[in-house]
Amino acid sequence: MKAIVHVFLKPGVLDVQGKAVESALHGLGWTGVEGVRIGRVIEFDIGGSDRAAAEAEIRAMCEKLLANTVIEAYRVDVGPAP
Amino acid sequence: MKAIVHVFLKPGVLDVQGKAVESALHGLGWTGVEGVRIGRVIEFDIGGSDRAAAEAEIRAMCEKLLANTVIEAYRVDVGPAP
Repeated sequence: MKAIVHVFLKPGVLDVQGKAVESALHGLGWTGVEGVRIGRVIEFDIGGSDRAAAEAEIRAMCEKLLANTVIEAYRVDVGPAP
Repeated sequence: MKAIVHVFLKPGVLDVQGKAVESALHGLGWTGVEGVRIGRVIEFDIGGSDRAAAEAEIRAMCEKLLANTVIEAYRVDVGPAP
């Protein structure tokens, strides 16, 4: 199965990278851009064919390694193998 | 409108961060994980209501600032404002 994990800073946490990109975009003339948030996306293949089991495994990976759950939130999408 | 930009290394480019995460996952016992690729996701609000015009603007932002098109590929999704 194909796993796609999005990791973002939680809403209350200041996203300095996003602020930097927003101000750079304003500087380049795109002044209508607002609320820039930058996150990570992690894609991988995972064996097996049970979608619910795969999702549970991926959530465990997020809790242990892929996300810092103190300041980051994550979203897991599981699809068929490509 | 809401813009979501995914930026990934191009397929031929070695993703060292992905390799590191893959080997860490293997070390934690998830040996079935393969082909880890790590990218960035950039979300922001952009004024206006013309979807095609917004997409063209966002592509210009990617070419100028958001992606390094020598080694990175990007995908643009535009949706209605949240």
